[in-house]
Amino acid sequence: MPRIVMKFGGTSMAGIERIRSVAARVKREVDAGSQVAVVVSAMAGETDRLVGFCREASALYDPREYDVVVASGEQVTSGLLALALQALGVPARSWLGWQLPVRTDAAFAKARIEEIDTAALDRALATGEVAVIPGFQGVHDGRVATLGRGGSDTSAVAVAAAMGAERCDIYTDVDGVYTTDPRIVPRARKLAKVTYEEMLELASVGAKVLQTRSVGLAMKEGVRVQVLSSLTGPEAPMAATLPGTMIVGEEELGEEMDAVERQLITGIAHDKNEAKITLTAVPDRPGAVASIFAPLADAGINVDMIIQNVAHGARGDGTGSTDVTFTVPQADLPRSLDVLGRGQAAIGFADVIHDTRVAKISVVGVGMRSHAGVASRMFTTLGQRGINVQAISTSEIKVSVLIDEDETELAVRVLHTAYGLDTAE
Amino acid sequence: MPRIVMKFGGTSMAGIERIRSVAARVKREVDAGSQVAVVVSAMAGETDRLVGFCREASALYDPREYDVVVASGEQVTSGLLALALQALGVPARSWLGWQLPVRTDAAFAKARIEEIDTAALDRALATGEVAVIPGFQGVHDGRVATLGRGGSDTSAVAVAAAMGAERCDIYTDVDGVYTTDPRIVPRARKLAKVTYEEMLELASVGAKVLQTRSVGLAMKEGVRVQVLSSLTGPEAPMAATLPGTMIVGEEELGEEMDAVERQLITGIAHDKNEAKITLTAVPDRPGAVASIFAPLADAGINVDMIIQNVAHGARGDGTGSTDVTFTVPQADLPRSLDVLGRGQAAIGFADVIHDTRVAKISVVGVGMRSHAGVASRMFTTLGQRGINVQAISTSEIKVSVLIDEDETELAVRVLHTAYGLDTAE
Repeated sequence: MPRIVMKFGGTSMAGIERIRSVAARVKREVDAGSQVAVVVSAMAGETDRLVGFCREASALYDPREYDVVVASGEQVTSGLLALALQALGVPARSWLGWQLPVRTDAAFAKARIEEIDTAALDRALATGEVAVIPGFQGVHDGRVATLGRGGSDTSAVAVAAAMGAERCDIYTDVDGVYTTDPRIVPRARKLAKVTYEEMLELASVGAKVLQTRSVGLAMKEGVRVQVLSSLTGPEAPMAATLPGTMIVGEEELGEEMDAVERQLITGIAHDKNEAKITLTAVPDRPGAVASIFAPLADAGINVDMIIQNVAHGARGDGTGSTDVTFTVPQADLPRSLDVLGRGQAAIGFADVIHDTRVAKISVVGVGMRSHAGVASRMFTTLGQRGINVQAISTSEIKVSVLIDEDETELAVRVLHTAYGLDTAE
Repeated sequence: MPRIVMKFGGTSMAGIERIRSVAARVKREVDAGSQVAVVVSAMAGETDRLVGFCREASALYDPREYDVVVASGEQVTSGLLALALQALGVPARSWLGWQLPVRTDAAFAKARIEEIDTAALDRALATGEVAVIPGFQGVHDGRVATLGRGGSDTSAVAVAAAMGAERCDIYTDVDGVYTTDPRIVPRARKLAKVTYEEMLELASVGAKVLQTRSVGLAMKEGVRVQVLSSLTGPEAPMAATLPGTMIVGEEELGEEMDAVERQLITGIAHDKNEAKITLTAVPDRPGAVASIFAPLADAGINVDMIIQNVAHGARGDGTGSTDVTFTVPQADLPRSLDVLGRGQAAIGFADVIHDTRVAKISVVGVGMRSHAGVASRMFTTLGQRGINVQAISTSEIKVSVLIDEDETELAVRVLHTAYGLDTAE
């Protein structure tokens, strides 16, 4: 009997009417003959409310007590969904993190799942009972542990891996993964399939469909993840037949389409949440760059793109100097400037210049591995429109450029056309 | 080192400011050298909200899932109080029902505590850590179980018994137990001490200070319970010196005051939530009364006062007839009438008359055991004011009468004076 995991987010859980609609959708999978585990988020807004309480109660909060408080949101929705399923005549019970158990490491408030014991779960599923599992929570050493914000996607993928589910359906506010943001490019296409690697690059650069950690886990465990819309009513067709987006391994992609059919580029992402920092006249000597980035790393600041301009009179002996430019998350900009200011004497730079009016544009696709010229086409396309590239970074399946924030939409639009991603009119 | 339990209700937990104030009060007990366990209710209104969700999700709800949902309210406040204590520099942690554990029977949604394991609790208290325990919840067979509404008082008394606390302080909306409702009799006095038995009679007839079950448990376990006001600010004097009401065994009462000093009557309670039912012309034969009350008992309806009038031409052979009057909770009146209507042929009564405009007035006191004339004075006092007594019931330490609801306040006032309970002006 096929096993599937269904995951519903906070919007789907916001109120009894919606929970009833979720129950109806789960019932259809059960009626179709699947063994079903459902992973649920807290009601929309509830986790924020609980986190607010904790912050108010104690500025430097104990993460173990924080977890006791915030895990309650998913506890409530898991019990309510079990009740709503029973009301439809579907046998169901909730399994809290400590009951299964879902064992995590000791990093309370941002724990990682180490192991899910499926003995009890297997017995329950075998009887045809739906297992309703609160996302985001587990247990460590007899204490409640949570996975950090957005952890319910990760819970769902971990449960799917543990129970050997053939599919993990993630019901979300969007109906799939698009070639780019449809608000910018109305002719963006929904992708039928995307690889884990592409999804990771698209997610980390701004396509906020799935939590990055959950995609990484799905890739590691080989869990097939389907992104589906939760916004259609209970009368929508079965999940398996809905045109959502399947996130799969590259080998599954290869089975169904050859390299010619597959687009070179899968999608284009943009991210306006980075800030650019430039240090001028950094001494051109060995170790200078390390003296910039080590203290930032110590402060937990995630530096993304880095470019070191050609040094003025570079001889590598410290007599020349160079400009160093890099990006950090905008939220970390004040802290970054503080760290750099305190290190100015040691690093020896002249000035620090920062700019938040930048955007990172990325073209992503496994197809570029076997095709040259992807980056070149990007620079040419942007150059023809007069868009200045301020920084570049690349990976095996991605090319990212930093540009002026005002040119974000234009850049996305022209690249979407240039790589042949527009739908036929 | 003295051990105490402090229990705070939903009003004291309604918001972070109040939780901080509770933390400050707990800190003073810790600073004074006590080992402290705190039992908390959910934020005021939260349990109602959660119960509402459950009712909406499923009309015939599974009590085990209901418990998962409603237990979350106390989970949240226990974590928040632990955080607020830590913020004051007081070591603290929450202990959920399944963590201690607090073991209950299998009656989910209205479970009874069977055993509290104190091994972990003892170790924690010995280190000076405050144990914050969510009231109302326990665990049975690995599932969350709740004790039914108002169960937090019972949790507090059970924890106090298990850990051998010298006192269980219940912080509530009132500042103690009064001789009667001060809204009716402004000269009502606050009682310094009251026995468990008196408290049970006062509580069950309308003085809603403590949950009845918790008083019964305190009596059984010999836990000294103090009722205190939670409404005074954090700068109020220490709990032990506050003039609340101590609820104790009769032997402790005897130690401190002899029978002469002790008032004959401890308090006067009233209850407007009963309904009177009269069945006319019930055949006067053996078994007739049983045929009335057995089906009511089967329907779970709690009959309180019963009077059988003198039979008309009673010969005990079924040829005479009699009227039978009794009271039931008003909420159960429709169901009672339904049960009686269906049994009319079998019982053989002529008519059923009901009246919700009645009130039960009770005078309560252990002193009446050794003094005759308490009931007589009650009837005389009421008779002098023209108040008609419709029914009477008595116990060892209580006399109750049923009167017209409109005369409730007058009856309470004149009885309060007649038994010498008024404070000196």
